[in-house]
Amino acid sequence: MDREAKTDRSIWLNAHRQTVSIIDQRRLPHELVVAELVTVDDVIRAIQEMAVRGAPLIGVAAAFGVYLAVVNTPPDVAADDHLRKQCRRIRGARPTAVNLAWAVDRMDAAVQPVKATAERIAIARQEATAIEKEEIDNCRRIGENGLPLIAEISRRNSGRTVNILTHCNAGWLACVKHGTATAPIYAAHDSGLEVHVWVDETRPLNQGARLTAWELGRHGVPHTVIVDNTGGHLMQHGLVDIVIVGTDRTTFTGDVANKIGTYLKALAAKDNGVPFYVALPSSTFDWTLRDGVREIPIENRNPDEIRTVQGWDNHAPRTVLVPPADSPVANYAFDVTPARLVTGFITERGICGASEKQVRKLFPEKA
Amino acid sequence: MDREAKTDRSIWLNAHRQTVSIIDQRRLPHELVVAELVTVDDVIRAIQEMAVRGAPLIGVAAAFGVYLAVVNTPPDVAADDHLRKQCRRIRGARPTAVNLAWAVDRMDAAVQPVKATAERIAIARQEATAIEKEEIDNCRRIGENGLPLIAEISRRNSGRTVNILTHCNAGWLACVKHGTATAPIYAAHDSGLEVHVWVDETRPLNQGARLTAWELGRHGVPHTVIVDNTGGHLMQHGLVDIVIVGTDRTTFTGDVANKIGTYLKALAAKDNGVPFYVALPSSTFDWTLRDGVREIPIENRNPDEIRTVQGWDNHAPRTVLVPPADSPVANYAFDVTPARLVTGFITERGICGASEKQVRKLFPEKA
Repeated sequence: MDREAKTDRSIWLNAHRQTVSIIDQRRLPHELVVAELVTVDDVIRAIQEMAVRGAPLIGVAAAFGVYLAVVNTPPDVAADDHLRKQCRRIRGARPTAVNLAWAVDRMDAAVQPVKATAERIAIARQEATAIEKEEIDNCRRIGENGLPLIAEISRRNSGRTVNILTHCNAGWLACVKHGTATAPIYAAHDSGLEVHVWVDETRPLNQGARLTAWELGRHGVPHTVIVDNTGGHLMQHGLVDIVIVGTDRTTFTGDVANKIGTYLKALAAKDNGVPFYVALPSSTFDWTLRDGVREIPIENRNPDEIRTVQGWDNHAPRTVLVPPADSPVANYAFDVTPARLVTGFITERGICGASEKQVRKLFPEKA
Repeated sequence: MDREAKTDRSIWLNAHRQTVSIIDQRRLPHELVVAELVTVDDVIRAIQEMAVRGAPLIGVAAAFGVYLAVVNTPPDVAADDHLRKQCRRIRGARPTAVNLAWAVDRMDAAVQPVKATAERIAIARQEATAIEKEEIDNCRRIGENGLPLIAEISRRNSGRTVNILTHCNAGWLACVKHGTATAPIYAAHDSGLEVHVWVDETRPLNQGARLTAWELGRHGVPHTVIVDNTGGHLMQHGLVDIVIVGTDRTTFTGDVANKIGTYLKALAAKDNGVPFYVALPSSTFDWTLRDGVREIPIENRNPDEIRTVQGWDNHAPRTVLVPPADSPVANYAFDVTPARLVTGFITERGICGASEKQVRKLFPEKA
């Protein structure tokens, strides 16, 4: 484990060592720790234990996972059997983010036809790196496409600070660089617009308080951490101009699976006339599901993630128990916001409304 | 400090010692600690630091605070000046719960006309004890009046478990006995109906995870702790039959100030056709305010309540820091749910709709 980290990206390939490095996001914001992933098991564990998280990053990590599977093909098994088995294991690491299956399937399709070992390793590296590069480009374009939304609010407000609310972390830590929900925010800030971000702490794992606040702080973006309960009150009092969130899976009909609690913020936005945007690369669209609330699988995680809170005390990580030790706990990790509550999608191709018609118009090749 | 506690009530008078005992709610659920309040300053500190909290309990604590003010009148000051000053100080301890001003004003009106020291102490004790007794009776009646709502759902469901969602703690710890929101739940459970309670953990101070879960567990009521983000998802999937919450101040027009996040749950209840009830004694009605969202003062508390989480580690209380130490934090303690989202009020007189007309019909003497 390496305590020196590149800090402008969440994952990178160590091509000469045939390994992958990640920022271990469980240690932020109080420690910046880099972990090196050597095997498929390392990748699966990193995804399951959320050392890496965020739909686009999970996709890229999965792609590198398939690369590591190819690199580490045991000499005594059939290479195709090994590839198929490892792809299945990686695909099953977490259920909700569609990028995981998308990336694994794409890697499998690229690698499978190539049989010679050295060429297979080369093509796996090439495809994983291509996926990584596309995700970076997509996030950059999401920033460019979302910037005018914020600029327009700023103009309407005569340059007064634009207040943006976000839930969870859809920043560069959730992607590779730039982020999805944060990409337009960084673009606006960098272009000199006055922005301020309300950061939902995002229980139970506090990705907002730990990760988004850390990212924004390092970038110099003004922000305020709030508990997840607060967004409605702020919107009632005109303190939110726009909500921008990420997503783990979005149906082609416009239903948005994202971190648990997103639906509640979307309801409040609707009730108060606040625009509610979802920023996503096209890899997060699910082109097979029509009814998000009924069809998207919602991960039920370990209750201890709620029972105990991880923080920092006396210069060391520490975990405290909050409820009675014997009280049952349920830990649904995501919810689905119906399309009717979503103002629009900010994608790498541009902005569209949350409907099948508008999504298909922007991505006609998926029809 | 006394580590033995009565555990069926949150506050009691030690008449012979002229002091008041409380359960120190900051220490629950991992320690049951009783604190003895001797002076007005003790009472104010207990209210401000939330050793006691919950609108009805704050009212009773304030009444006992006035009693302690009278008991401890210094010999060298005019008794009426002292009384007036201490009443003002107690009234200012917290801004949102209307029971605080209500109880202080009632004590002041009873005590002020009585000038002789011994009689003044006697009348102060008598009036505070009367307020305490009325709050207990009101909560008991709230339970009786709310029970048929739960029984009716149980009947409609052919006896299947009734799932109730609650936010924060409106249990006996927030009152003196029985609770407000919990009173119908305890009544239903005790009458043999199958109930299950979804307990919002209620950030930032986790009154749900710490206090409601502890109360329900001790009473044997089946319950599950969830993060505040979860209620919408549960309602979308038919897992909540009714929401019952308490309130810190409710306008006569039906707007409900309660712990921050209540509004978001009310929006989700409306969106999913789930009945949303507020349980309150009449002392929590504010008969002077018409527009809750605009007029009810919302307390802005210490950001450290959000920055750090208090829990239990290795058999001792411990506090951990979650966000970056330098990230700004805002801590709005309450929000206001507009009357249009409230199905009804469960009061000591019965149930009524959330409108001026229906509230006034139930309490005609307030017209």
